[in-house]
Amino acid sequence: MPIRKGKIRYLAALSLLALAGPLALAQTPDAAKAGHSDETMRDYQASGGSPLAAVPMHQDINPLAPKMSEEEFDKAKRIFFERCAGCHGVLRKGATGKPLTPDITLEKGLEYLKVFIKFGSAGGMPNWGTSGVLSDDEVDLMARYVQQTPPAPPEFGLKEMEASWKVIVPVDKRPTRKMNNLNLDNLFSVTLRDAGKIALIDGDSKKIVNILNTGYAVHISRMSASGRYLFVIGRDAKINLIDLWMEKPDTVAEIKVGMEARSVESSKAKGYEDKYAIAGSYWPPQFVIMDGDTLKPRKIVSTRGMVVGTQEYHPEPRVAAIVASHFKPAFFVNVKETGMVYSVDYSDLNNLSIKMIEAAPFLHDGGFESSHRYFMDAANASNKIAVIDTKESRLTSLVDVGKTPHPGRGANFVDPKFGPVWATGHLGDETISLIGTDPKKHPQNAWKVVRTLKGLGGGSLFLKTHAKSNNLWVDATLNPDPAISQAVAVFDINHLDKGYELIPIGEWSGLKAGPRRVVQPEFNKAGDEVWFSVWNGKDEESAIVVVDDKTRKLKAVIRDPRLVTPTGKFNVFNTQHDVY
Amino acid sequence: MPIRKGKIRYLAALSLLALAGPLALAQTPDAAKAGHSDETMRDYQASGGSPLAAVPMHQDINPLAPKMSEEEFDKAKRIFFERCAGCHGVLRKGATGKPLTPDITLEKGLEYLKVFIKFGSAGGMPNWGTSGVLSDDEVDLMARYVQQTPPAPPEFGLKEMEASWKVIVPVDKRPTRKMNNLNLDNLFSVTLRDAGKIALIDGDSKKIVNILNTGYAVHISRMSASGRYLFVIGRDAKINLIDLWMEKPDTVAEIKVGMEARSVESSKAKGYEDKYAIAGSYWPPQFVIMDGDTLKPRKIVSTRGMVVGTQEYHPEPRVAAIVASHFKPAFFVNVKETGMVYSVDYSDLNNLSIKMIEAAPFLHDGGFESSHRYFMDAANASNKIAVIDTKESRLTSLVDVGKTPHPGRGANFVDPKFGPVWATGHLGDETISLIGTDPKKHPQNAWKVVRTLKGLGGGSLFLKTHAKSNNLWVDATLNPDPAISQAVAVFDINHLDKGYELIPIGEWSGLKAGPRRVVQPEFNKAGDEVWFSVWNGKDEESAIVVVDDKTRKLKAVIRDPRLVTPTGKFNVFNTQHDVY
Repeated sequence: MPIRKGKIRYLAALSLLALAGPLALAQTPDAAKAGHSDETMRDYQASGGSPLAAVPMHQDINPLAPKMSEEEFDKAKRIFFERCAGCHGVLRKGATGKPLTPDITLEKGLEYLKVFIKFGSAGGMPNWGTSGVLSDDEVDLMARYVQQTPPAPPEFGLKEMEASWKVIVPVDKRPTRKMNNLNLDNLFSVTLRDAGKIALIDGDSKKIVNILNTGYAVHISRMSASGRYLFVIGRDAKINLIDLWMEKPDTVAEIKVGMEARSVESSKAKGYEDKYAIAGSYWPPQFVIMDGDTLKPRKIVSTRGMVVGTQEYHPEPRVAAIVASHFKPAFFVNVKETGMVYSVDYSDLNNLSIKMIEAAPFLHDGGFESSHRYFMDAANASNKIAVIDTKESRLTSLVDVGKTPHPGRGANFVDPKFGPVWATGHLGDETISLIGTDPKKHPQNAWKVVRTLKGLGGGSLFLKTHAKSNNLWVDATLNPDPAISQAVAVFDINHLDKGYELIPIGEWSGLKAGPRRVVQPEFNKAGDEVWFSVWNGKDEESAIVVVDDKTRKLKAVIRDPRLVTPTGKFNVFNTQHDVY
Repeated sequence: MPIRKGKIRYLAALSLLALAGPLALAQTPDAAKAGHSDETMRDYQASGGSPLAAVPMHQDINPLAPKMSEEEFDKAKRIFFERCAGCHGVLRKGATGKPLTPDITLEKGLEYLKVFIKFGSAGGMPNWGTSGVLSDDEVDLMARYVQQTPPAPPEFGLKEMEASWKVIVPVDKRPTRKMNNLNLDNLFSVTLRDAGKIALIDGDSKKIVNILNTGYAVHISRMSASGRYLFVIGRDAKINLIDLWMEKPDTVAEIKVGMEARSVESSKAKGYEDKYAIAGSYWPPQFVIMDGDTLKPRKIVSTRGMVVGTQEYHPEPRVAAIVASHFKPAFFVNVKETGMVYSVDYSDLNNLSIKMIEAAPFLHDGGFESSHRYFMDAANASNKIAVIDTKESRLTSLVDVGKTPHPGRGANFVDPKFGPVWATGHLGDETISLIGTDPKKHPQNAWKVVRTLKGLGGGSLFLKTHAKSNNLWVDATLNPDPAISQAVAVFDINHLDKGYELIPIGEWSGLKAGPRRVVQPEFNKAGDEVWFSVWNGKDEESAIVVVDDKTRKLKAVIRDPRLVTPTGKFNVFNTQHDVY
C-alpha cells in the first residue's frame, strides 16, 4: 500500500479501517450471550459485520453490464458494503472515493477496473488484490459488479422506527432520585466495539459497573443536559437510552433509526434539558428527533439535496456529527456530502425551522471552542475547519488546516503567545493545527491557524487536554508504523516549541500480543488523569491505560476479559458539559 | 366514463385533461414561426407535448417483469408521461393516483392490469381502452410497462440551469424609464397554451400589444414588486423575464429550471422589491432562487423528504404554487406530495433558512385573504384549505371544505352576514366554500366555512371577484356537460341566498365550433370588467369575452387568429398587488 510514515493518506487510512475489517468484524458475536435480537444477529452473520450487506433489495439488471448470477451479485453486494461503500457511498455517487456509477464504470471497462481493484492507485485506492484481501476471482467479480446499477437499500421511515422502538422501563416506573452510590460525574461510558456492548466504568475505583448490550460498534456516547441519561448509538443505527439513576444503570429504551448511523445528541438549551434527542444516519440519509426520555420518534428529516458550490443533487448526503447549541434550542447537524451544516430549531417540531449553512464537503466531526458559542467543524475532504456560530447560525469562517483534519471534538487551551486556541490533528499528515478562538480579546488571531505543531505522524484520530491540565495529548491510531500507533505524543502547552514527548502507552498496558493500537485520550472529571484505550483484535486481550496527567507516569491499567476491543471512552461530566 | 353532472370526480377531471391531451397537445407548433430552439422543438415533436417523454434515460431491465423491446419501452414511456404521470407521478410513487411501483404491479399481474387500464374504475381511473384513447395493443403495452422499474429522468442542477440561461438584454442596456405609452397597470398577460406563447393585451383598447415566444403551456404569469417585470413559466420549466418598460415589451432573459414546472414568483418584501425570483419544478422536485432582473440561478433546494403524518420518504414531492410574503423576506412554497409549506427566508441565501410547516397532502394552489397575511392554501387530496400565517410562518388552521378544492388564488369579499371571507370552488363537487378570514373583528367566523354556495357543477377551476365588484364569478371549465363548461355562474355577493345567474359566455363569444370551454374570470384594474377565455382546440378559433361587471352584459369580444388556445389571463396591477 502506498502509505509513507507520517504522510499517511486519508483514503488509505480509511482503507486501512476497511482492511482491518475481516479481523475486527467478520466474527459473529455470541448471540445468546450478547442478547441481540434474532434479526440483528442474522444481519451480522450474513454480512460479516456490515449492517447493510444483508438487507434485501430489489435489483434490476443493467443490460449493458457484464452478466452476473444472483449468487454472484449477492456476494459482490456484500463485499461492496464491507469494503467499498464507506468511501464510494452506498449509491456509488462518490464521497471520499470516486463515483462508481455505471455511466462511468461501463466506459472504463472490465480490464481497467480489474487492474485498478487489484493494484490500487496512488490516489488512495487500496490494492485489494495484491494485499491479499480479494482473490483474483473476487477482483473479477467486483469489476463486473460495479458496472451494474447500484442496488438501493430500502427507506426507513416512521413506521420502521416505531416497529423497532421499545420502552423497557416506562418513565413512571423509573427512580425519582439517584438510587446508587456512584460518583456519576466521573463515570466513563466505554465502547466495546466488536462485542456490540458498552462498559460503564467507575472513574474513581476503575471498576466496571455494568456491561450493556448495545448496537454494533458504538460510535459515540452522549449525555442528556441533566447528566441523568446516557445515549449510545451503534453503527447499525441502534440507540440505547441508559438511566444512570437506576441502582445498576441500564437501558430503559431503545430504537433503530436506520440501517447505518454515527451520531446521537441531546437537547441542551435552557427549558429543553433532557427533552429531545436527535440521531443522524448514514442510510437512509436523514435525521430524526425523538423524545429524550423514551426515544419515541417525533420528526424525521431527509438530508438529500444539493452540494455546496456545484449545486448538483446528491442522493446520499450522510449525517455525521451533531452538536447541541448551549445558546438556543437548536441542533447543528453535519450533512457530510453536501457540505452543509443544518441549524435545526427544535422549539416547534410541527413547524420545524432549518437553516442550511453552507460550509464545505465533507463535514465529519468537530466540537465547541471554550466559550461553547462556535462549533469547530472539520470539512475533511476540503482540508478546512468550518467555524459555525451556533448563536447566530451562520458560517463565521473557513480555516485552511492540514490534510484531512480529524479532531474528534478537538482540544481547547490557552496558547501562551496567541491566547485561546482550539486544536485538531489530521489523518493525512503529522501536523496539529492550532486555531485562535477569541475574537474579542485576540481578534488578530481569531479563526486563523496561529501555530502548527509536528506530531508523531499521520493517522491521528483524537487529541485532548483539560482546563486543569498543561498537557496536550495526541494519538496516531491509524499510523501504519506500530511504534507510532502504539504510542501517543504529549506536548507541554506552556512550551509548545519544545516538541512532544513520546509515551509508549501500548507497552505500559502490559499486553504482549496484538496490534495494541492506542486510541482516544479522555480526561477524568478532575482533569488530573488521562485514559487511553489499547485496542486489540476481538480475540485478543485489550486494556485501558490511565496516566497521571501531571507526572505523565502510569497510574493504572484496567484489564478485564469483558473489555473486548475498547475504543471511545466518554467521561460523563466532560461529555455533559462539552469540556475538552 | 363514470362522471356524473355536478359530481365530477377530481381524478376523472384530471383524466379529462389527459384525455384532452391528444387534441390539444399532439400537434407540433410551427418551429420556424415560434422561434423555439431546436432542442425544445425536438422535445415537442417526439413527445407530443410532454416535455419529459423525450428525455433520454438509462433503464435497467426488471427480470421479473414481462419482456419488452426497447421500442416498446420507449413508446410506453411516452404514453405514461402523457397520460399517467400527472396522477401517478414520474416515479410512480403515487400522488392523486395510486402507486404503481413494480412491487405492487407485479403482484397484480398482467390480466388484472389490462382490465383496469381498459375499463377504468369507479375510484377515478379513466377507461383508457373503452374511451378509445388506447388500442388493445396499447393497453397490453402499458400493462407490461407498469411492471417495469420506473425510469428516472435525469437531475437538473446548477450546471444545467446555467447552460440554459440567456440574458438577451443586459441590465445596463435596458431602458431607465418606461419607453411606451401603455397603461401598464391595465395590461393583461394571456397564456396561449398550445402555441407556446403569451399575448400582452392592452386592457383599455383590448388590442394585442405583442405576442412573445415562451415555454410550452405557460402555467402562470407573475409580476415583480415594482410592476416593471413580468415572469411567465411554461410546463417545460422555461421562464421568460419580460421588461414592460421597453418600447415594445419583450423578453430580456430566459432560463430552463428543470424538465417540468408550474410556479414562479418574485420577492415582494420591503427592501427586496424586484431583487429575487423563485421557480418551483415538478421534475426534478426542487425550487431555485434567481436574481430578479437576470434570472441568474443562485440557490437550488431539493424538496425530497418525508410526508406529513406517515413520515415516509417520498422521492418526488413536486413544487406547486409559490407565494411571496408581503410581511417579510420569505417565499411560501407548496411541497405537494409531502403536504408541507416551506417558508423560505431569502434574506441570506448562503445560510438559507427554511421553516417546514406541516399542512396536508397534496398542496396545490391558493392565494392570500384580503389582509395579505394569511395564505389560503388548497390541500386538494385532503379536501382542506390550510391557513398559513405568512407573518409568523406557521399553520393557523386546517379547514374542511368540499371535494378537491381548486381555488386558483381564490376570491375575497365581505359576506353581508359573516364579514370578510375567502372563497374556493371545487373540482370534485358543485359547491363553493366561503371561509371567514377576520380573526380580529369576526373571531367566531375565522377559519371556518361560514357558508356553502351551490354552483354550476363540478370541474370548477377558478372564481373571482374584486373590491369594487358585487359579483362573484365561478367557472366550471372541466365539467363534462358542455352547457355547463361553456358558461359561468355569477352570484350577487349581497344576496348570496338567491343563487347564481348562468351567463352563456361560450355563446357570447360568437364562436360557432369547438368545445368552447370557459375558463378563468379575471378583472381589469378598475374592477368594472371581467374577462373570460373561451378555450377551443389548437386548430380552432378561440376568443376572450369581456363582460361589464355591473350590468353583467357583454362588453367586448377579442378575436384574433393569433389568440391560439387562450387560458390564464393576468392583469398586471391585480397580480402585482395580489388583488383578487
